[in-house]
Amino acid sequence: MITVLKKDTTDAQMQTLIDWLKGQSIDVHISRGAEYTVLGLIGDTSRVDMDLIASLEIVDSVKAVSEPFKQCSRKFHPEDTVIEIGDSTTNRVKIGGGHFAVIAGPCSVETEEQVLQVARAVKAAGATLLRGGAFKPRTSPYDFQGLKADGIELLLEAKKETGMPIVTEIMNAAHLPLFEDVDLIQVGARNMQNFELLKELGKIKKPILLKRGLSATMKELLMSAEYIMAGGNEQVSLCERGIRTYETYTRNTLDLSAVSMLHELSHLPVIVDPSHATGVKTLVAPMAQAAVACGCDGLMIEVHNDPKNALCDGAQSLTPEQFSLTMEKITKIRDVVVSI
Amino acid sequence: MITVLKKDTTDAQMQTLIDWLKGQSIDVHISRGAEYTVLGLIGDTSRVDMDLIASLEIVDSVKAVSEPFKQCSRKFHPEDTVIEIGDSTTNRVKIGGGHFAVIAGPCSVETEEQVLQVARAVKAAGATLLRGGAFKPRTSPYDFQGLKADGIELLLEAKKETGMPIVTEIMNAAHLPLFEDVDLIQVGARNMQNFELLKELGKIKKPILLKRGLSATMKELLMSAEYIMAGGNEQVSLCERGIRTYETYTRNTLDLSAVSMLHELSHLPVIVDPSHATGVKTLVAPMAQAAVACGCDGLMIEVHNDPKNALCDGAQSLTPEQFSLTMEKITKIRDVVVSI
Amino acid sequence: MITVLKKDTTDAQMQTLIDWLKGQSIDVHISRGAEYTVLGLIGDTSRVDMDLIASLEIVDSVKAVSEPFKQCSRKFHPEDTVIEIGDSTTNRVKIGGGHFAVIAGPCSVETEEQVLQVARAVKAAGATLLRGGAFKPRTSPYDFQGLKADGIELLLEAKKETGMPIVTEIMNAAHLPLFEDVDLIQVGARNMQNFELLKELGKIKKPILLKRGLSATMKELLMSAEYIMAGGNEQVSLCERGIRTYETYTRNTLDLSAVSMLHELSHLPVIVDPSHATGVKTLVAPMAQAAVACGCDGLMIEVHNDPKNALCDGAQSLTPEQFSLTMEKITKIRDVVVSI
Amino acid sequence: MITVLKKDTTDAQMQTLIDWLKGQSIDVHISRGAEYTVLGLIGDTSRVDMDLIASLEIVDSVKAVSEPFKQCSRKFHPEDTVIEIGDSTTNRVKIGGGHFAVIAGPCSVETEEQVLQVARAVKAAGATLLRGGAFKPRTSPYDFQGLKADGIELLLEAKKETGMPIVTEIMNAAHLPLFEDVDLIQVGARNMQNFELLKELGKIKKPILLKRGLSATMKELLMSAEYIMAGGNEQVSLCERGIRTYETYTRNTLDLSAVSMLHELSHLPVIVDPSHATGVKTLVAPMAQAAVACGCDGLMIEVHNDPKNALCDGAQSLTPEQFSLTMEKITKIRDVVVSI
Repeated sequence: MITVLKKDTTDAQMQTLIDWLKGQSIDVHISRGAEYTVLGLIGDTSRVDMDLIASLEIVDSVKAVSEPFKQCSRKFHPEDTVIEIGDSTTNRVKIGGGHFAVIAGPCSVETEEQVLQVARAVKAAGATLLRGGAFKPRTSPYDFQGLKADGIELLLEAKKETGMPIVTEIMNAAHLPLFEDVDLIQVGARNMQNFELLKELGKIKKPILLKRGLSATMKELLMSAEYIMAGGNEQVSLCERGIRTYETYTRNTLDLSAVSMLHELSHLPVIVDPSHATGVKTLVAPMAQAAVACGCDGLMIEVHNDPKNALCDGAQSLTPEQFSLTMEKITKIRDVVVSI
Repeated sequence: MITVLKKDTTDAQMQTLIDWLKGQSIDVHISRGAEYTVLGLIGDTSRVDMDLIASLEIVDSVKAVSEPFKQCSRKFHPEDTVIEIGDSTTNRVKIGGGHFAVIAGPCSVETEEQVLQVARAVKAAGATLLRGGAFKPRTSPYDFQGLKADGIELLLEAKKETGMPIVTEIMNAAHLPLFEDVDLIQVGARNMQNFELLKELGKIKKPILLKRGLSATMKELLMSAEYIMAGGNEQVSLCERGIRTYETYTRNTLDLSAVSMLHELSHLPVIVDPSHATGVKTLVAPMAQAAVACGCDGLMIEVHNDPKNALCDGAQSLTPEQFSLTMEKITKIRDVVVSI
Repeated sequence: MITVLKKDTTDAQMQTLIDWLKGQSIDVHISRGAEYTVLGLIGDTSRVDMDLIASLEIVDSVKAVSEPFKQCSRKFHPEDTVIEIGDSTTNRVKIGGGHFAVIAGPCSVETEEQVLQVARAVKAAGATLLRGGAFKPRTSPYDFQGLKADGIELLLEAKKETGMPIVTEIMNAAHLPLFEDVDLIQVGARNMQNFELLKELGKIKKPILLKRGLSATMKELLMSAEYIMAGGNEQVSLCERGIRTYETYTRNTLDLSAVSMLHELSHLPVIVDPSHATGVKTLVAPMAQAAVACGCDGLMIEVHNDPKNALCDGAQSLTPEQFSLTMEKITKIRDVVVSI
Repeated sequence: MITVLKKDTTDAQMQTLIDWLKGQSIDVHISRGAEYTVLGLIGDTSRVDMDLIASLEIVDSVKAVSEPFKQCSRKFHPEDTVIEIGDSTTNRVKIGGGHFAVIAGPCSVETEEQVLQVARAVKAAGATLLRGGAFKPRTSPYDFQGLKADGIELLLEAKKETGMPIVTEIMNAAHLPLFEDVDLIQVGARNMQNFELLKELGKIKKPILLKRGLSATMKELLMSAEYIMAGGNEQVSLCERGIRTYETYTRNTLDLSAVSMLHELSHLPVIVDPSHATGVKTLVAPMAQAAVACGCDGLMIEVHNDPKNALCDGAQSLTPEQFSLTMEKITKIRDVVVSI
């Protein structure tokens, strides 16, 4: 960390700061210039509170040289992390380090028939995990909030029948007992910085799928992964699901450069969710193709059952037939990508 | 709500939708045009899931005519809400409807001496509530997370001595028992859409200070207030604390037009936090002046104790002397504003 | 266009508006509801000033049903536009409608040797057009502003030797005489809404490459293309080059969903510039791959000459060897994409 | 400027960079750490191309210590600049350094009667300059583009009758001859980075009103002012007119912290335009009050003539009566502000 001191800082003030830093096992290298003095902080600066130093009267500005994340950093863990999902050897699914996973299923769990139909269809098309919303974060208190515990029960039935591990979102640490048999626990975009929830998920031994917040930077996403990992749970997958921009033709803006950049910065797998990112059905396949082409470790795609009889099919959901076609395309692209 | 149907919608498809809407007690007025058919939805459309309708295959787009919020809407509650804070007649403070409140205190509670010194100083200068962070939402798991329960104890001591009601942030509904004697419970920007927390706060009988999220729109802020009010707790104050923009000279961008616009849309009081919004000490006084000039119902200002002996004074915190000068200025401006 | 009138609008006020609309050859369909009256505007509403109507005292809100762009809309021109570039049959390059182009070259034109070396290298690797900046838009007046006319001369030399058509940016309509022999004229992001420049480019008969503005929506990009086309010049290619977001690890955020969405909305070709979008060399190849995988019509990639002897190689520029490898990868991905 | 070198930089590479910097009259102070080497650049670094250095292979990152702007910086010019507007002693208006100006008038110049009526009304209410749009930057080529030269003629008539100096927007340097008798030339938000236009305005001797771009940072605004000043024209006023955010209840988000921050950074006057910033008539007065309360040097307010007979009154425009009331309020607030 580099700290630039203001021009009129006295030696005594500078020494007070240096002493305080040394008390935190940080060595300081002083470089005096005509116009400013620069302090180079050496040691484990990830535990030094950068905001606090920046807020000191004598400090002009602070510049991080090393990143604030550690456990999720590729620098300290060069090999790709491989996440193992599923509670038995029969339904074991791996993500990362060359293992590619496709998570598919309905936006919300609604009925037994719906979940089972979709589960069978996506399995047949090649999906490896089943998703479905049981607890739904809705902007309005008057909108449908999900089937909750009943929704998880329906997912578990589908898991029993198809053998697919299941993925569903948690919104409250107090619900954790209900997630006992959920294989991959999702943290939604709105809870990416619900630090209390992240801390609780750090204490359990279950894979977590952490979605990027609505306007979060990659660094903030990684710091939230760090919260979970710092608690002892290292099984974290990151999910790019679009960020808020001024664009209105798409619901969010899918940031595919995040796939490559997160791979450089971190050893954690990166999943892409083209359904939520775009909110437009016709964009799901091309964005899935693009995500695979730049090396993502998995996809999360919304699929609903028969649209002719269903009132509330998401604008972003594919039919089983469309999903099947999409799977064929991304398989071909993935075959080329792994060969180049 | 207005629903525009796609050109190729069949009569049967349209009728299915109309029947479903009527099942929700919504009347439908059909207007056929050469290029599109428009359905006007009449009735209590605030309980109709707009996203769900927009996602239907036959729907081109949906346009809300009435707002999705109800309990916090000025349309249904024309008079300003007055929030009463404090647990006895001796320390009762009102916000809204002409009652102006100044909340001041340190960013984080650190020591007994610090809290008491600041509390005495801000009371002397005219502040009406004492703030202080006990549970701190930090981006990094390695940064100081606050004194937690001990911090609340120190605030209660200061309350006992000075008689000022206290304000502090909650991050987890499970901590509610610790907030028994807290007078105004703050929901921070990062938890504005922690819907599970909002629902729990809707069940209690204590005033809530709801901060606008980092990139939240006013509608989203009001929908989050609606979550609390829908649960039965109508004592909600809104807080504008700056939104994320590309600007780097200020930490966030203070949106003062939100003060006037929220007053038009809602009967709830609006507090402005110039300290967090700007992150720059010299901007606190001018932004407090501006906030008062456009009619805010209160201010929240960070004040720290003696900077000469303190290492970690926030860049955005005023000294007691600076706070006292700021109070004089805003009092003069408020005197003019209430007279015009 | 749908116009929602305020509740207290009088019949006389409504009639004034309707008469004014009819004067513009717009038919109006009135739909009266209990709470609001909706006017459906029928006819060529693309020439009705939506802002003006929205600003009327009696109008609550306006909703466009058809898009405001016309000449660039796929609705009125279903077939892909194919842009033909190059002034002779020997160096003719096509973009769009299945024709794929790769534009490569240095960020800034600096010396004859540099341009020629890079031109030869990118041609050998398969690039079809040569790019190079002669007039450079720089945020600071003190930064290098480009070689200007001399830079265009050097590009023309490279064109003469290699036979590649050239692409370079225009910043001022007064410079048009210098662009006589430039094959594809680029409008940069900062000039996307320089309407005076767009109007001048609408009067010439030369292909234009229009870059998306820093924070522009797709609709704004298409409206700027419409400015050029409305003047009579239909040879416009669109270029996605990243938009401004809060992310700092990448210079901008590449919006690949724009490729697919612009193809739905418009018949114009879409080029992707992964170099400027990311500003990170290691992200150029994966983003180029992703862009090809979702069906872009061309790529624009920065390539510099020997980095060992050059001081100012852009952080985002590939070496000729890296470019050559990237070309091999994207060729393989494109082969799959066109087959699926 | 501080340059952090990558860990594996060789001494020879570092020396090449240092020699190149010394060739630009920059002294370099080397500070070697265990993990990184820091170069402190001393001298007139405002003329060193920071992007170029950041792009070097051996450079990890670059940090500016001094700001890139110079002529508009308060550091080199501590006293407030006072802009004098008007071509004779009879209509001289000053802005900045304690001089407060109110610019008022219609959004677009439409008819002689309209301009004269509004001009008389705003003068009577206390406005000091007359504004009116003659050349209008419109997103759509099909929207009204302004009366152009005829519009300027109408403004000049109003100037002749009322004696008020006039303000109108320029979009093209080729139009400069038409602006011969315009007193204050406005550069609109969309042209803030039209560097070719800025350079031309730097060559003339007439005050310029430079509006902040749609998504521009304050630094970018100041760099654009620097373009004009570097050319020799020091009479620049800055205008905060709202920035693009996700908010939809207001057209843009007025950034009033920019008033105070720009005053810290620069000696140039800062004008606030609450009409364009909010796009909401009822917000104009409160935002004007807030702007005055935080010390702006002037206001720009849209006023239209009789709304009963006019079809296209801007949603953001005040009637002469509303403007007159607003003037009374801001005068009272300004009286307090200058006294505190």
